[in-house]
Amino acid sequence: MTVVAPGASAARPQLIREINEKVLLDHIRRSGPISRTELAGLTGLSKPTVSAALSSLERTGLVHVTGQRTGVPGPAASLYEVRPDAGYVLGLDVGREFLRGAISDLAGTVRARLSVRTKAGDAMARIQELADLTATLATETGIDVTQLTQTVLGSPGVYDPRLDALTLTGRLSGWDSPATLAALRDRFGTSLMIENDVDAAAIAERVHGHGRNVDSFAFVSVGTGIGMGLVLDGKLRHGSHGVAGEIGYLPFTEGSGSDQRDARKRGGFDASASAAAVVRAARRAGVRGASTAEKVFAAAARGDAVAAAVVAEEALLVAKAVCTVITVVDPELVVLGGGIGQAPGFLEAVSQQLHRLAPVMPDVKASVLGRESVVAGCLAAGLDRSWQTLVGRVGTQG
Amino acid sequence: MTVVAPGASAARPQLIREINEKVLLDHIRRSGPISRTELAGLTGLSKPTVSAALSSLERTGLVHVTGQRTGVPGPAASLYEVRPDAGYVLGLDVGREFLRGAISDLAGTVRARLSVRTKAGDAMARIQELADLTATLATETGIDVTQLTQTVLGSPGVYDPRLDALTLTGRLSGWDSPATLAALRDRFGTSLMIENDVDAAAIAERVHGHGRNVDSFAFVSVGTGIGMGLVLDGKLRHGSHGVAGEIGYLPFTEGSGSDQRDARKRGGFDASASAAAVVRAARRAGVRGASTAEKVFAAAARGDAVAAAVVAEEALLVAKAVCTVITVVDPELVVLGGGIGQAPGFLEAVSQQLHRLAPVMPDVKASVLGRESVVAGCLAAGLDRSWQTLVGRVGTQG
Repeated sequence: MTVVAPGASAARPQLIREINEKVLLDHIRRSGPISRTELAGLTGLSKPTVSAALSSLERTGLVHVTGQRTGVPGPAASLYEVRPDAGYVLGLDVGREFLRGAISDLAGTVRARLSVRTKAGDAMARIQELADLTATLATETGIDVTQLTQTVLGSPGVYDPRLDALTLTGRLSGWDSPATLAALRDRFGTSLMIENDVDAAAIAERVHGHGRNVDSFAFVSVGTGIGMGLVLDGKLRHGSHGVAGEIGYLPFTEGSGSDQRDARKRGGFDASASAAAVVRAARRAGVRGASTAEKVFAAAARGDAVAAAVVAEEALLVAKAVCTVITVVDPELVVLGGGIGQAPGFLEAVSQQLHRLAPVMPDVKASVLGRESVVAGCLAAGLDRSWQTLVGRVGTQG
Repeated sequence: MTVVAPGASAARPQLIREINEKVLLDHIRRSGPISRTELAGLTGLSKPTVSAALSSLERTGLVHVTGQRTGVPGPAASLYEVRPDAGYVLGLDVGREFLRGAISDLAGTVRARLSVRTKAGDAMARIQELADLTATLATETGIDVTQLTQTVLGSPGVYDPRLDALTLTGRLSGWDSPATLAALRDRFGTSLMIENDVDAAAIAERVHGHGRNVDSFAFVSVGTGIGMGLVLDGKLRHGSHGVAGEIGYLPFTEGSGSDQRDARKRGGFDASASAAAVVRAARRAGVRGASTAEKVFAAAARGDAVAAAVVAEEALLVAKAVCTVITVVDPELVVLGGGIGQAPGFLEAVSQQLHRLAPVMPDVKASVLGRESVVAGCLAAGLDRSWQTLVGRVGTQG
């Protein structure tokens, strides 16, 4: 709805025109392709006002006529949509083993997607690999990297303004150095935005996954690392220091795979329940061939009672973490993600323990999104940011 | 700011008039006593529009002229304020040992306040005592109970819509029966609103305490019972089932005062860290005269090393709970409340442990509000609700 302050309408026609264009652009983005008459109906603006605003938007290159609506009474109506090529978003995911990336146009269509196993030995080499991956994606898309309106990097850790560096970056060696952040900015320019990787996966869950139809949910990711993305009132919560959801630091120490040195570095719950902790617990219990958490879960599924006990203990630990989230914020839904969180049967094991522990049961589901979810979340966040930027420019160019 | 949808202004003058009256009422409430000219300046409305709206508001009895501004150039200006006696709010706090209550007028001035030790043996007797206390307060205020526009009861527990009863009511026997809620409604009428007692104390903290100048904080109360009130973006969060902040259910079981039966009834953290758990831990450790948590803390302060170890363990448990809250929502500030939370020296002991555990340190403070904080929070919540109700009525009477 266009809002007009009383007394202001006569004084500032330029401002009113800008507001009207932004409102129209937002409607076209959400509901396009759409006609002038439909836009007038949706906004309450007069048809001449809509026409003038559409002309101005066409001049900025953000909107174009995509076709005509025919087959209804009266003359054929021009349909307006945003120009997909008015901007491009790059989403990147930096992990310990894999780098992933994708470029989408402004309409949200993914134009190219790539994932590579990293060979980097240090942070600078990893940044070079990210730049190479970006160049390849741009070539495949047929654009120049300068056409990227927004780059979003999903990374472990959170930004610490006192250090001007990433912190709590987990297992990514050298990633928390101020030089790393400086080099990332140097490579990817001012449009670089860094989003915590689990938070990015939570955004993907909100846009493409189980989070689509709820106001509040917690995306709890358990795998190589541990983290949570918290969405309340439809908004991702970073907290006042950016550490909301860093549940690896839950002060749990009771797991049989717990490791004290790990606990000091990455938090108690991470040291008790990450994939590495599952492997430690399995080895201590004497499970044979327990080189990865996946193999421990597979042994349990095959009927290895000792491995099954390790998996049951892991389910109890995760249920305690979920119980914790319930007692603090009571979300409508909890989504389990990550290699362990999405393992077959794990949801049921966690739910069973949770019934016993929690004061109330939310919906609990396993994510059905795959390994591309961090990139998908980065693209979604980048599109939102691009729109804010582009809409902010409207009226200053017209 | 008055908002007007384009195209609607000519069609619905009655609606516009109502919106204008509500906007003016809100300004008078926040900024009164205030003149017609000042109101026109604040709202952007014309002086004739303001005059017409003020006349209408005076007719409803919500607003009156309280005096004249003199000593400035021009004719003396009438100053408008809300009529304090246009409504009254009753705040009640039902505890296991004490019942407390107060009545405030619509301007927020407390007119009468009372607290009594309860003799009630069951829920119905307790409700009778609350009704008696209300009658005494009304008599002291010089009003009839029918003049109460809003009653807010601060109570342990949360409302469960499936049972149409309070649940998780802790140590208040019989308080979770559907008959109790029915009897409360019968006694206090349709204006009764029930707020979790710790949430009410958090509201008091937001209005009168450390929470005044922050957007997000957690009020963590540890004493006879355990609970938390969570304020994010200035708003108290109840969660999607009303259990946000029920941190008594944190799955901690490691305290030496822990009790399994208690853990099943009231949650793991409550069973490990409530006042009763402190007494159990002290007795198990051989502290003499440990009949109350207060006495254990006093013995520790006098230099009893065994009692001091019990207090140190309690501080560690509370630090773990606070660390949990940080990892989930990362508030700007944590306020410790309750008999144990506000005990001398306890804040320092908790902060020291927290430094070791938490990924980031928020401000941590002990509440300076006293035993009246639940009632104060109920009054604040009741005033807000009263204003919503009264403002909602404007324009339907004029």
